Amino acid sequence: MVKQQLVPAAGGAGLRLKRGELLRVIDPEGGQSGDLLVYSEDGRERLSNGRTFDYDGKIYVSTGDVLWSDCSNPMMTIVADQVGRHDFLYSACSLEMYRIQYGATGYHANCTDNLCSALRELGIEPEPLPTPLNLFMNVEIAADGRLVFAPPKSRAGDSIVLRAEMALVVALSSCPASTCNDGAPARPLAFEILND
Amino acid sequence: MVKQQLVPAAGGAGLRLKRGELLRVIDPEGGQSGDLLVYSEDGRERLSNGRTFDYDGKIYVSTGDVLWSDCSNPMMTIVADQVGRHDFLYSACSLEMYRIQYGATGYHANCTDNLCSALRELGIEPEPLPTPLNLFMNVEIAADGRLVFAPPKSRAGDSIVLRAEMALVVALSSCPASTCNDGAPARPLAFEILND
Repeated sequence: MVKQQLVPAAGGAGLRLKRGELLRVIDPEGGQSGDLLVYSEDGRERLSNGRTFDYDGKIYVSTGDVLWSDCSNPMMTIVADQVGRHDFLYSACSLEMYRIQYGATGYHANCTDNLCSALRELGIEPEPLPTPLNLFMNVEIAADGRLVFAPPKSRAGDSIVLRAEMALVVALSSCPASTCNDGAPARPLAFEILND
Repeated sequence: MVKQQLVPAAGGAGLRLKRGELLRVIDPEGGQSGDLLVYSEDGRERLSNGRTFDYDGKIYVSTGDVLWSDCSNPMMTIVADQVGRHDFLYSACSLEMYRIQYGATGYHANCTDNLCSALRELGIEPEPLPTPLNLFMNVEIAADGRLVFAPPKSRAGDSIVLRAEMALVVALSSCPASTCNDGAPARPLAFEILND
């Protein structure tokens, strides 16, 4: 193990990965959604859910699936997944979302700001933000397309491991939205860089 | 009726809409998918499927549903829809997609280039391109999340009507991918601006 980093509850953090390095994202307490964003090291390629849906032929990604960039290059491969259900539909929550859906009046911690700050600290100009891979976030799709939040399936200590298929800048946010966390307040997440 | 415009088979076209104007998108021959992109008149706000999924609470949009921007503002409202099934998951097809999935070697017409050209002609710098609303494109989602292309439900002359909720730049591409068009070669689409 090379490096471990804590992502504070309702906060964000970022790191750089070399090609071939493995990133483990851990939910230490269980039940916490985490928004993961991935850019190429120069910031020109970005994670793309739409390309991933197309090339993988599915909307739920797990072990063996590739995360594709908006330039149609493989960015990461999921090599292990103890949870098996993640969301790749929802935009990162934003201040405007908390105002519209939660009635927030002042500032409210949000994944958009967390991710943008973490990426800017690493020299990436992130906006406009693509849709994150919302790890552990569990959204059920009814037959008519209606979306329903379900409790994350992650239990304490569960993790997902992804291999970098190119040099990357990665950011992770512990989602502050209780809706995504089975009604609970946000808790920390952690990530580790493992040797290949 | 103010203006009618043809979108050539496998090509693209764009136009500007004032707030309150109605846009009708027509599939004259039936069975043709069309990628629709929407930007605010200054290009700063872009169509967002992830925000729309969140605020509308569904992945299939039709009559009465709002299309939201990445700044959490309403861009368009669907006011009539003779088809009722559109895709909002897939990225616009690109040259790289035709190389990877169709084995194309030279140039191949694609919705990304069609949309970018149409938007640039109207003064918008479109990239990175958000996911279009893929009108008439019919994608079924299996319970395990696998995606299957089904024939578009649009019959000859069917249309969808959308109201501009802000001043907009709009682009439409007649998708060249036979997969999206029940195996048929691309055919033209049309749009009309109607008075409110």
